[in-house]
Amino acid sequence: MAADHEVFAKDAPTASPGWAPIAPVVPLQGDELRQRARGIRLLTCDVDGVLTDSRIYVDDHGREFKAYSALDGHGIKMLMQAGIVVGWITGSKAPAVTHRARQLGVHHLVQGAEDKLTPWEKLRAELGMPMDACAHIGDDLPDVPLFNRSGLAVAVPHAPATVRRRAHYVTRRDGGMGAVRELCELILDAQDALLPQIAAYGAA
Amino acid sequence: MAADHEVFAKDAPTASPGWAPIAPVVPLQGDELRQRARGIRLLTCDVDGVLTDSRIYVDDHGREFKAYSALDGHGIKMLMQAGIVVGWITGSKAPAVTHRARQLGVHHLVQGAEDKLTPWEKLRAELGMPMDACAHIGDDLPDVPLFNRSGLAVAVPHAPATVRRRAHYVTRRDGGMGAVRELCELILDAQDALLPQIAAYGAA
Amino acid sequence: MAADHEVFAKDAPTASPGWAPIAPVVPLQGDELRQRARGIRLLTCDVDGVLTDSRIYVDDHGREFKAYSALDGHGIKMLMQAGIVVGWITGSKAPAVTHRARQLGVHHLVQGAEDKLTPWEKLRAELGMPMDACAHIGDDLPDVPLFNRSGLAVAVPHAPATVRRRAHYVTRRDGGMGAVRELCELILDAQDALLPQIAAYGAA
Amino acid sequence: MAADHEVFAKDAPTASPGWAPIAPVVPLQGDELRQRARGIRLLTCDVDGVLTDSRIYVDDHGREFKAYSALDGHGIKMLMQAGIVVGWITGSKAPAVTHRARQLGVHHLVQGAEDKLTPWEKLRAELGMPMDACAHIGDDLPDVPLFNRSGLAVAVPHAPATVRRRAHYVTRRDGGMGAVRELCELILDAQDALLPQIAAYGAA
Repeated sequence: MAADHEVFAKDAPTASPGWAPIAPVVPLQGDELRQRARGIRLLTCDVDGVLTDSRIYVDDHGREFKAYSALDGHGIKMLMQAGIVVGWITGSKAPAVTHRARQLGVHHLVQGAEDKLTPWEKLRAELGMPMDACAHIGDDLPDVPLFNRSGLAVAVPHAPATVRRRAHYVTRRDGGMGAVRELCELILDAQDALLPQIAAYGAA
Repeated sequence: MAADHEVFAKDAPTASPGWAPIAPVVPLQGDELRQRARGIRLLTCDVDGVLTDSRIYVDDHGREFKAYSALDGHGIKMLMQAGIVVGWITGSKAPAVTHRARQLGVHHLVQGAEDKLTPWEKLRAELGMPMDACAHIGDDLPDVPLFNRSGLAVAVPHAPATVRRRAHYVTRRDGGMGAVRELCELILDAQDALLPQIAAYGAA
Repeated sequence: MAADHEVFAKDAPTASPGWAPIAPVVPLQGDELRQRARGIRLLTCDVDGVLTDSRIYVDDHGREFKAYSALDGHGIKMLMQAGIVVGWITGSKAPAVTHRARQLGVHHLVQGAEDKLTPWEKLRAELGMPMDACAHIGDDLPDVPLFNRSGLAVAVPHAPATVRRRAHYVTRRDGGMGAVRELCELILDAQDALLPQIAAYGAA
Repeated sequence: MAADHEVFAKDAPTASPGWAPIAPVVPLQGDELRQRARGIRLLTCDVDGVLTDSRIYVDDHGREFKAYSALDGHGIKMLMQAGIVVGWITGSKAPAVTHRARQLGVHHLVQGAEDKLTPWEKLRAELGMPMDACAHIGDDLPDVPLFNRSGLAVAVPHAPATVRRRAHYVTRRDGGMGAVRELCELILDAQDALLPQIAAYGAA
């Protein structure tokens, strides 16, 4: 049987019965989205492709570099100041991730998690977080089990269609280019916690 | 109360009362812009996202890389040749910034400034610069207090809407891709100091 | 005699007799494409411009960096889990390639191959692979001899027109930004092997 | 007097008398362009912004990285095989440039040349090249004196308007993304030397 799945298809051929058209991505908007964002108390983030633009830089010695966004860093700090717990859950394992997480002071860092569901459930249990209080942002298949359980599931624009279709919201900014910042502001705004922080900078 | 603030929204949903449409960004043009640029004698620049494209590269040892634009380098040199003081003010702290600033010979470098207003006022006092003689280019909330006081406040296109709305001018080129060069030429042109420099290259 | 060849020409001048219009690229679609993908048992990939975005980062010591895509990594793993052999064939020679190939566990790695046809034929003979069972993805002239023999020849969008015209399919994603992932999913889907893997993530 | 110069202006305000509209860039096309390319025997290239995308990566130790394009490398090799002399002339000075130039085997490398005209004239004298036989590709003001004398002056799309206006041709690909490759193929094609090289790959 041919899969009804098609990835990366902006203008997919529709003649072939094996390539059924994709259900259009209809991310939540306005009140519905705000309502889901209002109750969030834990944000978990995938790393590659979400906090970075999915590029993995490798040098001649096998050392890795990753490119983070300064905008995301500020968003995560604002979120934590508002009392929301932030964790990173990634399937890969790289000291470059540890350094950045420590620099920003994120509360939880899980690396080498091919299965992300187990550490996520463990974290949820430790924190006593109901699923409705959890937001997850990701860009690939290992993020989907968390999408299926999170109160607010968020994908980045470059994610495969299979992944984007499972998200409540697809960010406008791409991964590594402010996607996490956009989500942080969305959550803060829904909780009426953004304006006070902005006002402190004379920008309200 | 829901904030009237919406970030990153190019095509924001308008149905939701909580997400009021953004006041359109109407940057200054022509004579008004030239007039503000004419009196500038100090340019201060944010670093991440302005002199770079907001990416922070981190390697396995926690070392950072930043990506500057050769175009900006040339613009800053032309500005300084015209007698305008140039300073960089950044919230982060990285040797990679010191190296680049030294290479270009910028006059002032302030790092680790979470609050940018204090060092900016200190610099202004030292130099005896009235606010009208100051231009600042930035991309995030910590730049807003300087925007509110600067004779010419400039944002880059990727800046959150909250920030862009406080700017007199939004550059066409993005941060790290020539935004500062664009501003340098704008200032020099308004002061009739660009043409002589260009003429020296046989390009007038 | 003027060549009828024009490269990089999106809006080529047509008045000049020496610059004949390019035959339009009509990549295969739907059933035809699926049929070619169905029999693939060996995928060979060029590296620069395909697994990377064609950028070669060089530092002061002549060391090289390359930027791979996390999306591609996951696609290659899924392909290998489905029993398809994966090999990389590149004209350049860099330890950064060896490291990434080892990290992903790809089956074959050929470096320093200015002529790619000889090692490809050798690999094909060792594996007993008919040409119809071979897919190759590339972006430059040295890939064309493999295109001419492969059951499924795939180019990336930034490839010169000469190269793109010899491909059965041009990916929608660019090299280093998920082009190989797109091809992996296309092959898996044609072989009805994608849905089971996706289902394991709760995304079917 | 206000300069009639405006840089980076895609949609420049026209109301202000000080910002006169830019003369439209009408690069040469077809026969005229081919004719200029036909006689080229020396190609000189700026480095930053031409062979790279104008980004200068700086690390914590002040070491620099530059990002070259694999496509350009292949184009330069084809050009040299056709007997055309290739030189790089850059105002900056970085070991990363030396390494890449050596790797590709370019014939001449001039670094630290704030004034590019003197070394260019010296090179031209040594080689006995008339100006009509010289092509130069650049992206900034120091390239303009060479533009004014070269038989074929080429700018990249991100170059300031002042620079682009002095070029005979503006490449479609941007610097560091294949601009030099495009120029190499243009020259080779005009000299009927591209098709034989392509044919060797079975792509003619």
